[in-house]
Amino acid sequence: MLKVTIWNEYIHEREDEHIKKIYPKGIHDCIAEFLGREKDIEIQIATLDMYEHGLTEEVLMNTDVLIWWGHRAHEKVEDVIVDRVKKRVLQGMGLIALHSAHHSKIMKELLGTTLNLRWRHGDRERVWCIDHSHPIAEGLPDYFELENEEMYGEAFDIPKPDDVIFLGWFAGGEVFRSGCTFTRGKGKIFYFQPGHEEYPIYYKPEIQKIITNAIRWAKPINMNNAPLECIGMPPKPEELLEKNFQ
Amino acid sequence: MLKVTIWNEYIHEREDEHIKKIYPKGIHDCIAEFLGREKDIEIQIATLDMYEHGLTEEVLMNTDVLIWWGHRAHEKVEDVIVDRVKKRVLQGMGLIALHSAHHSKIMKELLGTTLNLRWRHGDRERVWCIDHSHPIAEGLPDYFELENEEMYGEAFDIPKPDDVIFLGWFAGGEVFRSGCTFTRGKGKIFYFQPGHEEYPIYYKPEIQKIITNAIRWAKPINMNNAPLECIGMPPKPEELLEKNFQ
Amino acid sequence: MLKVTIWNEYIHEREDEHIKKIYPKGIHDCIAEFLGREKDIEIQIATLDMYEHGLTEEVLMNTDVLIWWGHRAHEKVEDVIVDRVKKRVLQGMGLIALHSAHHSKIMKELLGTTLNLRWRHGDRERVWCIDHSHPIAEGLPDYFELENEEMYGEAFDIPKPDDVIFLGWFAGGEVFRSGCTFTRGKGKIFYFQPGHEEYPIYYKPEIQKIITNAIRWAKPINMNNAPLECIGMPPKPEELLEKNFQ
Amino acid sequence: MLKVTIWNEYIHEREDEHIKKIYPKGIHDCIAEFLGREKDIEIQIATLDMYEHGLTEEVLMNTDVLIWWGHRAHEKVEDVIVDRVKKRVLQGMGLIALHSAHHSKIMKELLGTTLNLRWRHGDRERVWCIDHSHPIAEGLPDYFELENEEMYGEAFDIPKPDDVIFLGWFAGGEVFRSGCTFTRGKGKIFYFQPGHEEYPIYYKPEIQKIITNAIRWAKPINMNNAPLECIGMPPKPEELLEKNFQ
Repeated sequence: MLKVTIWNEYIHEREDEHIKKIYPKGIHDCIAEFLGREKDIEIQIATLDMYEHGLTEEVLMNTDVLIWWGHRAHEKVEDVIVDRVKKRVLQGMGLIALHSAHHSKIMKELLGTTLNLRWRHGDRERVWCIDHSHPIAEGLPDYFELENEEMYGEAFDIPKPDDVIFLGWFAGGEVFRSGCTFTRGKGKIFYFQPGHEEYPIYYKPEIQKIITNAIRWAKPINMNNAPLECIGMPPKPEELLEKNFQ
Repeated sequence: MLKVTIWNEYIHEREDEHIKKIYPKGIHDCIAEFLGREKDIEIQIATLDMYEHGLTEEVLMNTDVLIWWGHRAHEKVEDVIVDRVKKRVLQGMGLIALHSAHHSKIMKELLGTTLNLRWRHGDRERVWCIDHSHPIAEGLPDYFELENEEMYGEAFDIPKPDDVIFLGWFAGGEVFRSGCTFTRGKGKIFYFQPGHEEYPIYYKPEIQKIITNAIRWAKPINMNNAPLECIGMPPKPEELLEKNFQ
Repeated sequence: MLKVTIWNEYIHEREDEHIKKIYPKGIHDCIAEFLGREKDIEIQIATLDMYEHGLTEEVLMNTDVLIWWGHRAHEKVEDVIVDRVKKRVLQGMGLIALHSAHHSKIMKELLGTTLNLRWRHGDRERVWCIDHSHPIAEGLPDYFELENEEMYGEAFDIPKPDDVIFLGWFAGGEVFRSGCTFTRGKGKIFYFQPGHEEYPIYYKPEIQKIITNAIRWAKPINMNNAPLECIGMPPKPEELLEKNFQ
Repeated sequence: MLKVTIWNEYIHEREDEHIKKIYPKGIHDCIAEFLGREKDIEIQIATLDMYEHGLTEEVLMNTDVLIWWGHRAHEKVEDVIVDRVKKRVLQGMGLIALHSAHHSKIMKELLGTTLNLRWRHGDRERVWCIDHSHPIAEGLPDYFELENEEMYGEAFDIPKPDDVIFLGWFAGGEVFRSGCTFTRGKGKIFYFQPGHEEYPIYYKPEIQKIITNAIRWAKPINMNNAPLECIGMPPKPEELLEKNFQ
């Protein structure tokens, strides 16, 4: 079983009537529902208001892939929890950062840049797949459309991604690296831009397919629970020092 | 001095009245003019109809960076000349492939893929700079516009580029990796999408700045005129074989 | 089922007594044996002396991943077969190129460089895993040793790999990018250096694990049997051309 | 003029008699001397014990490239100064991190990983150049040797570098990505492994050549003194929203 934890700050959906109608039980619940249809995926939920934001040591030790949705309350996430998540990513846990999670503390810590970008409310997006060889693109068409999405535009201040799988086209004239991957330590990271809370993005089949693919791609390889450390090596044989290159 | 050779198939500009008006002496002449204003650049011209397409051994041995514009007559470029150019790129000569040169024999030989793409006549393009840290982007704005350009769209069948510096946005709904770099052997390659022959693209200051920057970036490092070869190494000291890892 | 075809030139093992003792039925047979223990893998064999080198259209249409071992007879592989294999890789078939297959026609065609390197008979190698997050490294230790292996050393004339997973250390003083990946079209390529015919390399558990992992990693995503082609897009709506950016 | 600031923690050279003999005025002084021979380079010195570690706002605003050597006192560098340096790198300042600077706060902040590695005192290193096309490799031989150097070995916990230019071979059996580049924001970063304080590494001509090349490569492109910020875009023309894709 692939153990997936969905973290959501879960504020917009409780405070804003319009958004509550779209996601009555929260964005995490919508994501949990479509992931729950996969037989090999097991889901836990964590939200900002839970004890330790729901991300206790125990939860993280039992998480293969962590999904992160945050927007309004990035600063309310405690540094100690961010450090814990970061350590776990470096040990091999996958991380799927959705939409405005680009500005989350955990993404800034892992990527080292500002992750700043252009933005504008209310645009139309076409998501183009530019790498059909990537497991995250499995079963995806050449492009699909989001009638309404917040515009996120270049230049996006990120380190060079390992892979750029999706490019976003916005009707207002912008482009964006909408789906891209990074590796930090042993952990795989996928950033995916669509998912503004005011639109029912996570109900779209293409979006669900991409997130599901991403989870399978991000699963840990050689996960190591031991603390990360520097390794001092034993001295090499004396004769080597003497004889080499003579 | 930086020795630049501009290669142009030079057919459209002689056969089509509309294009002749835009580039009366050929696209190569327009490029030679703006490059000629740089004090450290020395220019040679080569065209399809010249002896050995103007790309003799002597010309190539005196070329630091080769610019390539071709479209209608890719198949008329002799294989022996393509091999010669390829060898020279691998030895360190820079290559700037413009617009429809994506389908030139030399690009297919060096990149190994089809370089297929989507296309459509008559669109409007916005060229976005997504990597302001790159020497080819020096002095460029966040974006600039081409009122008329042929649309080239993803998925573009290229190997993963070393750098993607420009992304193209097209009014009709497509995106494109419009400026990207590759290295093959010691040679640096820059592919740049704008430059359809029916529009006066090469008169635009931003386009001229990008091509000039690209030439400086693509200049040879450790150019080696010797033939490329495998190197058989002398046997290592006997004692090494004996003593190592004991 | 994952359909794997193992291609071997199968000359050394028939002509050289020493090598025949190591691989009495050929290197392909040794590889087929350890892959045959995997329940999800189905194997076909192809050799140089078979009709169309064993790589008919039908065989390739029924191959998910092609393994390639060649050394002495690269030039005897017909160009028409190389083109066929190349086309199939671009459509999505995985390719695992072993040891001296770096100089095969198919690798040169796909990568566009000379793939030259340094070499020397009779050395000792330590293979280091430098990317434990990669699926090809699953279950591998930090390093393992090959008591005898031919030295392949840098500089290795390859394009920048997508991933470098293994680095080779040789007792005589050289290093090598011993395991690295490339993507061409939709096809995934893994080059793996160990496997000189004079030593029983393919019997080593670590080597078998790596090749098995590589096959699973290289399996096609969105395999497309249709011919690769450029796509001309329909004209965009007239009003767009008129109204944009006004 | 290229404005280079050399930062050194400057402790070993004052406290250890052996090291004082090698670098009587500090490692920074040795580096300043060979860089000072370049006519286009202007040097400032900064050390840990200076006011604000010598890295005031004014100094950083007048620095194109910052060299960093630190080992024993990483933790004594104030967080506020680290933040200031990081911000300046993201704006475009180059950073050359030498030897044990892999564990400096600034490198951890920018790269997001542990930068852990293997290590051992007293080894012999061969530094191989694996990318002769890179400006940092200009004029370098295929390899050169360091009779004595501290061993730094893989797996090195870094994000995938933009370029790997040098690989280190150690007589004791390890390999290392000894020279590699990263980009963060507009800033170029070069990490270079040789330079243990107990050996006269920075007097070696090849080492001096590499550091000098690296400075020229890392110089800012489009340096921006303005604060980094997100850019909200004006709404797009109403007609676009209406007419697109109809």
